[in-house]
Formats: sequence, structure tokens, C-alpha cells
Amino acid sequence: MKAIRFVGVGKPAEVVDLPKPTPGPGEVLIKIGGAGVCHSDLHVMDEELGLKGPFTLGHENAGWIAGLGDGITGWKEGDPVAVYGPWGCGRCHTCQTSAENYCENHASLPTMGGGLGSDGGMAEFMLVPSSRLLVPLGKLDPAIAAPLSDAALTPYHAIKQALPILTPDTHVVVIGIGGLGHMAVQILQALSSATIIAGDIDDGKLEHARELGVKHTVNTRNGEEAAEAIRKLTGARGAVLALDFVGAQPTVDLCTKIVGRHSRITVIGLGGGTLHYAANNPPYGTSVMVPYWGSRTELMEVIALASSGRIHPLVEKFPLEKAPEVYQRLRDGKIKGRAVLIP
Amino acid sequence: MKAIRFVGVGKPAEVVDLPKPTPGPGEVLIKIGGAGVCHSDLHVMDEELGLKGPFTLGHENAGWIAGLGDGITGWKEGDPVAVYGPWGCGRCHTCQTSAENYCENHASLPTMGGGLGSDGGMAEFMLVPSSRLLVPLGKLDPAIAAPLSDAALTPYHAIKQALPILTPDTHVVVIGIGGLGHMAVQILQALSSATIIAGDIDDGKLEHARELGVKHTVNTRNGEEAAEAIRKLTGARGAVLALDFVGAQPTVDLCTKIVGRHSRITVIGLGGGTLHYAANNPPYGTSVMVPYWGSRTELMEVIALASSGRIHPLVEKFPLEKAPEVYQRLRDGKIKGRAVLIP
Amino acid sequence: MKAIRFVGVGKPAEVVDLPKPTPGPGEVLIKIGGAGVCHSDLHVMDEELGLKGPFTLGHENAGWIAGLGDGITGWKEGDPVAVYGPWGCGRCHTCQTSAENYCENHASLPTMGGGLGSDGGMAEFMLVPSSRLLVPLGKLDPAIAAPLSDAALTPYHAIKQALPILTPDTHVVVIGIGGLGHMAVQILQALSSATIIAGDIDDGKLEHARELGVKHTVNTRNGEEAAEAIRKLTGARGAVLALDFVGAQPTVDLCTKIVGRHSRITVIGLGGGTLHYAANNPPYGTSVMVPYWGSRTELMEVIALASSGRIHPLVEKFPLEKAPEVYQRLRDGKIKGRAVLIP
Amino acid sequence: MKAIRFVGVGKPAEVVDLPKPTPGPGEVLIKIGGAGVCHSDLHVMDEELGLKGPFTLGHENAGWIAGLGDGITGWKEGDPVAVYGPWGCGRCHTCQTSAENYCENHASLPTMGGGLGSDGGMAEFMLVPSSRLLVPLGKLDPAIAAPLSDAALTPYHAIKQALPILTPDTHVVVIGIGGLGHMAVQILQALSSATIIAGDIDDGKLEHARELGVKHTVNTRNGEEAAEAIRKLTGARGAVLALDFVGAQPTVDLCTKIVGRHSRITVIGLGGGTLHYAANNPPYGTSVMVPYWGSRTELMEVIALASSGRIHPLVEKFPLEKAPEVYQRLRDGKIKGRAVLIP
Repeated sequence: MKAIRFVGVGKPAEVVDLPKPTPGPGEVLIKIGGAGVCHSDLHVMDEELGLKGPFTLGHENAGWIAGLGDGITGWKEGDPVAVYGPWGCGRCHTCQTSAENYCENHASLPTMGGGLGSDGGMAEFMLVPSSRLLVPLGKLDPAIAAPLSDAALTPYHAIKQALPILTPDTHVVVIGIGGLGHMAVQILQALSSATIIAGDIDDGKLEHARELGVKHTVNTRNGEEAAEAIRKLTGARGAVLALDFVGAQPTVDLCTKIVGRHSRITVIGLGGGTLHYAANNPPYGTSVMVPYWGSRTELMEVIALASSGRIHPLVEKFPLEKAPEVYQRLRDGKIKGRAVLIP
Repeated sequence: MKAIRFVGVGKPAEVVDLPKPTPGPGEVLIKIGGAGVCHSDLHVMDEELGLKGPFTLGHENAGWIAGLGDGITGWKEGDPVAVYGPWGCGRCHTCQTSAENYCENHASLPTMGGGLGSDGGMAEFMLVPSSRLLVPLGKLDPAIAAPLSDAALTPYHAIKQALPILTPDTHVVVIGIGGLGHMAVQILQALSSATIIAGDIDDGKLEHARELGVKHTVNTRNGEEAAEAIRKLTGARGAVLALDFVGAQPTVDLCTKIVGRHSRITVIGLGGGTLHYAANNPPYGTSVMVPYWGSRTELMEVIALASSGRIHPLVEKFPLEKAPEVYQRLRDGKIKGRAVLIP
Repeated sequence: MKAIRFVGVGKPAEVVDLPKPTPGPGEVLIKIGGAGVCHSDLHVMDEELGLKGPFTLGHENAGWIAGLGDGITGWKEGDPVAVYGPWGCGRCHTCQTSAENYCENHASLPTMGGGLGSDGGMAEFMLVPSSRLLVPLGKLDPAIAAPLSDAALTPYHAIKQALPILTPDTHVVVIGIGGLGHMAVQILQALSSATIIAGDIDDGKLEHARELGVKHTVNTRNGEEAAEAIRKLTGARGAVLALDFVGAQPTVDLCTKIVGRHSRITVIGLGGGTLHYAANNPPYGTSVMVPYWGSRTELMEVIALASSGRIHPLVEKFPLEKAPEVYQRLRDGKIKGRAVLIP
Repeated sequence: MKAIRFVGVGKPAEVVDLPKPTPGPGEVLIKIGGAGVCHSDLHVMDEELGLKGPFTLGHENAGWIAGLGDGITGWKEGDPVAVYGPWGCGRCHTCQTSAENYCENHASLPTMGGGLGSDGGMAEFMLVPSSRLLVPLGKLDPAIAAPLSDAALTPYHAIKQALPILTPDTHVVVIGIGGLGHMAVQILQALSSATIIAGDIDDGKLEHARELGVKHTVNTRNGEEAAEAIRKLTGARGAVLALDFVGAQPTVDLCTKIVGRHSRITVIGLGGGTLHYAANNPPYGTSVMVPYWGSRTELMEVIALASSGRIHPLVEKFPLEKAPEVYQRLRDGKIKGRAVLIP
């Protein structure tokens, strides 16, 4: 079968031919219906993250069960499934609650997941080590579901933790209306009545936010002015939640200026910024967090959101073999929404 | 009546004679039974915090109702009460839930509270602007209750937010076993079964922690070694909560090295440290917070804890007039537990 | 001024002339802009509830501040406000969190609130005993806000407690699509992505639910058939929440048949039904609750929902003097949505 | 190997010889170190519960891993483990959070667990269908751990849900200080500072409660008098939580009389009582629940509580072959604490 491989830091992904894998006891073979192309893959190929290749890329995967190893019950061939991405030990207290993204034993695991140390989904078939990592898709198209497993799950996880404070009389600021940000806006609209303020340095992205129904948009190129404009909208309370999908120094700094006391700043973007937290700056009682991906049950909830038409990812489909070209377009900023490879 | 006054930044507190105040409509007059002497008072006297004097010092107060203004129901003269310290607007959503410490309108209020902009409790009598700021004491001695209103309320508030993650199979680290830290240890023991690890640079303080029943103590003078010793105790999970009652750069840095993913770091001490939060450092999913004081209902709960004998503040009593001398002893590190002034 | 008075059990409401009240210390005078006419008033007039008349009716009130007693700060004449209905002691732990609907001292209070033991809002002016019972309206019309203070606050309170389990992959059943039920549907849509199933014995009400966007409606005249139809929609999980706005025996019984394990049944309607809870019937882990009204901060949130256009109460306006006729129409089932009296 | 078998309703348990089982793919063989003898077994043998025999009894099990089927990673032979009792489908949203006690697919499963439809732990060896059902024991004696998996897990689950309302200024009533009740008292002491009131009709059991440190005990033989005595202790607030480990009509009725508004009644005992919930009776806002067992992660927490010496189950050990005699002693009320069979 065809597969897109990571072969070493600093080297481009390679298209190779591999034998179709066979599931051992407890393993599941997935026929891939779609594999999302993510910016993180560029980090994997460009930076020394400690991942040892070669392995097949692709950590946003969905398809159909094509083979069941011995000892698996409750699933059958042909079932459409999404593959949960961050693989934990499966045994610790945290993994038992399905939050393998925060596995207590992550430091001693040989892989972070398929496409992130193990063979991922940019291939015709993919081997998943346990059926606990599968989520049923129902009627949702695997090509749509694949990117949801990261680009929607990650903002969903960040937002879900803040829901108790997102009462209808509050403001939430979403900074960066790109792949994850445009999903965040839709998730916020589906799950809360908080007033959304969208921020971006790109007026086109702000236009996109308005098309999605966001009433308040602020260009964040000038941090001081943006902070003032946002504070004018939020009043004395300030924003109760700032979601930063950029994570660069200017956006992180902006977050600290727009929240009120007893608020939350959640930095999802890996833009290299550092939030400097000193007494009362950001304001007293503010929780700052950098989350990572989401849990298995949160993925179930995301799939349900998409199935009921509450969230709509922007997806552009490409044949599997075009992966090297798609990565180049991603580097060039020429992908709209999420690129998905179809074998 | 005698009162201890803040008269300006850089000047020592003065003992003066003032007329006994009279409560206007909605106000309550308190005969002071005890006023705690807090390190924050030194900040007030030494630094430019924007507080305009002169005003009577003392923000940890308890006593008996000595006069009720017009329009107050449900209270009577002689009732023993603690005075809630951080005075908010009383009207915003946050104040309505009793969390005046996070008042949404704090920036536009003329005072932060009695002893912090308004006349406080280092006097024979004190005027409280509303009966909503009073908590009944029952049989608890006001001289004991006074310091609880800050030195116990502040750690209680910090700990209460973390209780859902303090399951019996987890570790919590308390750094700084002084006035607030020794209360934190007792509060943790009363409200959870998490395993406590106490850290301090002073072996005498660690001895105090062991006397309180803490099994694991670590001298934190050498941050790297302390982190390693703590990680050895916590195993792969790491601490789920680090409570820093020092807040200096070395202790804040230590916190980031001992928690696992999806944990909490809460910095209460105002030691001037800054926590630098970048991606996965502290580990992904960790919430960082600098809280401020606590809510009115949390003070009710603290009073109940002390009344039932679950927490015991160390208190040293002094006559009101000795305030200047007591402040000097505080500067010299010669107060054990909390000093309380008795008019 | 004109006022509509309860004069005794079994007697019709009377239109009388009363002197305009004057606010004492701590009290606030409200010029009424709207007073909602509620079924509960019929209970007050028809049944022996222990309320001693005479008093002015009307417990759903909004208007403008027309006078401030001594000792009140932070409000001014002309401010548009809703009046919070269930008046508690204001001092207990529960009242301090703003949930006066569950005041710990309710049994010893002389009144349940304005229009429920004290003079209510069916008059030109109304006296409110404390400014803590006021919620700012912003630009919302008091005639619209008045019924929200009960007909929207009550379902909002019931729903808010269940929000953590209303994930996007769940079903919630709303039984009774009348005054409170049609608000519940809108609140659920605003705050969650759970799939709504509406039940009623009146096909017109089900049509109303569909107009509001509900996809699944079930006529509940035949309980067994309705239960089966609902279970078919929910699958093995069952409903996670059943909201019963009728509360009669057949609807309460229906609730127990449609929820799965670890679910919630919340009975709001006072239709005289009794839920018989034995082991595993309703299924294990199900929480059953009969809530009462809502909290002060929940009213703030309801006002925000209406102000942003997320919920729309159906309101029919009448002049104050028509109260006796309006009550008759209410008895005859001839009021659509909520009747509001305008002085 | 020797095994104690359920052979049919109305028939006594039989001691038989069975071949030692062999673990298939995904299965784990456990060498039993202790199997708890539970009242539920008598229900299984006496009543038509829909369980099809024959099968080996014993649903409270612990021991050591003696064999691992293909496809299992992360465990090794000799590991001491407790066996989680309520076996769910393992795939639904609820099971994925580890709460298999509330499995969404329970109605279609062929068994409720080992000893409850499948072969349990009253034998030398037991086969567990998946390693997800194992909890590591550390140094805890399996004979002690076995009964914890039900007699401590069940009250722990009931109490954990109520922890947020068990603030230090509240009262909790525990009715029935037997096998589960005496664990509940210890769990409450370990996890909260609420004031405990113990109720029982047996003065010896109340004496036991006092030995455990409970200050307030009430004989509940006369329901009216007991309710009055308890209300006197709780004051106007009433109990915030009533835990009924009897579940008979008199105890369930008692619960409704002692809680205040916005409280919880949790009925764990299967004594055949029915709680009749009508408007405001029990008081408004009270949540009533009949829970079932607990989750996998809660069992991890219970094991941690016992390992750190915070809870101590009373255990009486018997050789496996004595099972028929032990069941007779259980029927005769002659077992103190929990009987555990040791192969």
C-alpha cells in the first residue's frame, strides 16, 4: 500500500510502498477514509522533538474497520470510525477517564500516537493498538471527521473546561480565526450564549468570523489599541475567557490585558510566546492554561456536534500521493481550512 | 478612642486618639475584640500602592456589634462577628455570589476595604459599611477569629478550588510553612486525603509541618535537588497541586518542575516571582493562578472549621498600643504565627 | 395609587386605592413598568397556603427606581430594574450566594416575597426591602422583563444545574410546552447542543415547539406509547434529562420511563403528581429534583439572554385595572404566553 | 480447582471442582487472594433476578495476576490487583469515563459482572475479560482489598458526588452503621469536615459509630423522635445530605424529614422502601438518588484511601470451602464487618 513517511528531521516526507499491516491480538486495522494535514506535521519534520523515524505521518484519521485482532468484542468490519490521536498508557487514573492527552505515564511511552512516533493514517491502512481508541462515526463522512479529531477536538477541550463561567452575561475573546479558531467560534456558539469577540491581524479572517455570525471583531495588529477596543466592549468585567489560537508573544500579551479578575486565559497556539504571570498581572484569580488536544469522550461529543450540523469544518480534499505538494502549500499558507488526504 | 493610623508612605504607623464613630443608615459599629497584624500592612506603609491616608490600619478584624444603623435587620448588639475584609461594590454578578475579592468594579472603588483605604480595626471601634460584610462567630474567640479572616481564608480559598482534583491517590506540595502555610496544611488535612509534601528553606518550619502530621518534608534551599526529591515521592503523576506561599522566583520555578500534566500551580505569596508559562512548561494542561483573599461564604466555612477544632491558628496577643513595636518585630521576623492586637 | 389586592382565600382579587409608599432606610421604591400574571396567583387566592392578607398581588415585577431609602449606594432614580421574587433572609450561607429561593431560614420568615405575603407589583408603585433584590435591565422593556423573573428564571435554574451532562450526544425531553416550557426550549437551545424532544398532549403546543426549531415532538396523551416513541429516539442511553413542566401523575410517571441510568428528572410543574423512587426505578443513578424559582445571579443571566435576543417570551399586555378579568381568562385557559399588567 | 457455585434460584451454593481456566486474547487470569461475601449473594440465590446459572459466586475480588492473554500490555504475572465488579460494555461514553456501573448498554449485556452472571472470585482462580477491569493494589493485602471493591466503593461513590456541598458548616446524616455505613463514616471523615450524625436502631452500632469518632448519634427506632432530635442538631439549615444504608420505608421516610432545601438524599440500602417525592416534600431543591456501586477510578481512589490507612474495613477471614456455612452465618446476622473467603 502507499504511505507518506517521516524519514528524519530536516527531510521531506516520502511516498513509499509498504505491505498492508495485519492486526495482532487487541489491534484493529483501519481502512483510511481521510487523513488531515496539520501544521504539527511541519514541526515533526523540521524540529528535533525526540520522535524516531521512519514512520507513516498523519495524526487526524478516520475510516472503516478493515480487520479485528483476536480478543476484540463490540466492533465489526465496515464500522466507520474516527481514530483518537493522543495515545496514552490506557491504565493510569487519567487515561481511565479517557483523557489520554494527559496520560500520567506519557514520559515513558515509546510513542505519542499514530503519525507521532508510530505509523499514522497517511496510508491506505493503519493499525490502531486498541479498540478503546476508536469513536463511531455514524453517518458522518470520514473525510470530514478526520480533521475534527484534532482541529475541532482541541478547541472543544479548551472551551468545555470554561463553560461554567461562560454565562450569557459574559464576553469571550477568540484570537486567531484560522483552522482551529473558526471551529472555536462555532463550538462557542453551539455550547454557550456568551458574547464572542473575534480578533485577528488579517481582515479577511475577521470577515470570515462575521460570516459565521460573530458581531464584534477587532483587528489585533496594534496590541494596545486592540486591548482598548476589547475593554470598551466588555466593560468593567473584562473578558472572562481569552482563547489564543496564535500563541505568539503579542497575542499572549494581549490576553493578559483584556481579561478581568477571576477569568481564564487559554493559549492553544504554539507560536512561541511566553505568558509572564506575576501578582495581579494578569488580574488576580485568573487561570492560565496551555491545554493539549482532548479526551476520548470529548471526541465523541465533537463527532455528535458535527453529525447534528452544529459545526462545519472547511475541508479541501487531495489524493494521498499529493502529500508532498500539500505540505508545500501548507508552508506557503495556501490551504483554506483543513487539507485532507484521501487514499 | 485609641487607633493605629497609616499616615503616609514611608512613615511609621501612629497611635492617635479619634472620636468613636457613629453608624449611619445601613452601617454597623463593631467593638473590636482582635485585629490581626499582617505583612501586607508593611507593604501599605512602605510602598506606593495608591492608597490615600490617613486611615486606621487593620484588615483582619473581629469583635462584637456595638451599634446598628437604620435599616438593618437580622442582627443585634452584642453579636460576635468577624469582618469580611475585601470590600467590593456588592452589586455586580461576582459580588452577588459573595466573592467580593474579585469584584468586577474593583478598579473604580474608593477603597479596598477596612485598613486598606478605609478605617480598619486597629482601634477600639470600627465602622463597617454594610451588614453583608459580617460573619457570625458563635463561641469562637474574636482574637482567634480575627487572623482567620485573612491568614486562613486566603489558603482556604486557594485549596477549595482545587478540591475536585485532590483525590486520595494524589500529592499536593505546600511551599512555605509560615503564617498561611501552616494553616494550609491543616485545611488540606481537614478537607482532603491527598498526601501532603511540605517544603521550606527553614528546617524549623519543616519540623513544625511534621508536628502537624505531615509525613513528607523537603528542604527547598536547593531547587534542583528539592524538585528531584519531590518527584521521587510523587512518581510519574507528579504533584497535582503546588501551593506556593512564598512566591519568590526560586519557589515559583520549583512549582513548574514538580507538577504533572493537568495539574494546578497556585501562587499565594507575594514574593515578587514571575511564572513564565510557555507551551508544555509547566506541563500541558496545568492551570496557573494567583488568587486573592476569599469570598464571604468561604469565611463562614473557615469560621466553622475553627469552631469545630479542625484548624488552630498560632496567635500571639498584644495590647493595641504596642502596634508600632509589633510591626517592628514583624519586620525582624520575630513573630510566631500571627500577632493580634487587643484594644 | 391603584393596586390589585389579595383579601382572603376564596375571594377574588380587588382593585383598591392605596397611598403611594415611602421608602425607609435600605428600602427602594419601584415605579412598576409591568407585573406578570401567574398561575401561582390562583393558588394563592384559592388555597390555604398560610399567606396572610390583605396584600398587593404580583410576584413578577419590573420597572424603574422611583425612590431610594437612606443608606443605599450604587443605584439612582430612573434606573430600570427587575425585582427578584423569592425574598430570603439575606444573611444565611445560601442567601449569601444569591440563592434566596433556598434560604435556610425560609420557615421563619414572615413573607415569601412581594405578592406572596408582602405587597407585590400589581400597583403603580412597589416597595422593595433591599437593593440586593434588584437586577439592572439595561435597554430591556420592563413589560418583557417582568415575566422573565419567574417564567424564564424557573426553567433557567432547572436547566443550568443539568448543563454539565447535556453534552452534544445526549437527548433532553421537555414535557409541557406552555408558559415555562416554551421558555425552556429556547434556553436549552441557547445553552446546549443536546437534542430536544418536546412532549405535550396538545398538538398545537407541539406545533409551537416545532416553530421554535425542535425537530422531535411526541404527543404524550398515551403514556406507554409516548415512552416507547421517546426511547426509540434516544436509543439505549435514554434521555439524560427529563424536564416536566406539568408535574401531574401521568407526566411524572412518563419521566421515569424515558431516562437512562445516571440521568436527571426535574419536575417543575405543580400538577400534584408524586414520583415514587425505589431501587432502580427510575434507573440507578438518576437524580430526581423539584426545584423552586432561581437565584439572583441566575436572574441576571436570564436578563442577559433576553437582552441579546436569545430568548423571546410571548407577552400579552393589559391595563392594571383589568386584573380581575385577566385572572378569569387565565382560569379559562385563554391567555397565550404570559399576561402582563401595565399600570 | 475448588469453586463456590450458584446453581439456581432457591438452591444453596455448592462447592464443586472445576478445571483451572485459561486466559484467551485480552483476558487475564487472577489467582484469588480474597473474595468478599456480600448480602447481594443472598438476593442472587433467593430471588428471580434474571441471572442464569450455574456460575461461580463472588463479586468482591482481589488477588494476583496468574496469566495474561495475548494482546495485553502494561501488566505482568504476580501483580496484586483488585477486580472491578460491575462490568459494562466498555465502549459507550459512560464506560469510557470508567463509570461502567452506569453502562449505557447494560440492558443488552449477557452478564452484570463476575459472580453476577459470569464466573466470580469464590474459587482459586478467576478469569477477567479485560485488563481495564483491574486496579493495582500496591502493598495492600488482597483479603482486605476484596471487600473494599464493593463495601467501600459503593459509599465512596455516593459520598463523592455530594462533596461540593459538604462544607465545614454542614451536617450529614448516616443511617445504618453496618458493613457499608461504617465505611461511609470513615470516608466522610477522610474527605470532608462536615459534622456527622449517625443513626441506627441498634445501640451497639451507634456505639461503634462513637468509637469511630462520631460525636452525634441518634437511635432511629422512633422515626418522629429521631427526626426531631436530628433537626435540633442541624438547626434551620437541616442536613445537607442524608445517606440511607438501610433503604427500608421507615429510614427513607426519615430522610425526607431531616434535610433542608437544596439538599441531597441518597438511598444505598436495598431495603425495599420507596421515596415519594411531591412538590416541596422533601423540601424544594432536594436531589434524591439511588446510586449503584462506583466507577473504576473511584475504586483506585478507595484503594489509595485504604493504603494510606485512612479507612479500615472490619474483615473476618474464612477458608473458601466454608462458604455455605458463612452464607448461613450471614443470614443469621452473625458476621461482624465483612466475611472474606480465602482459597
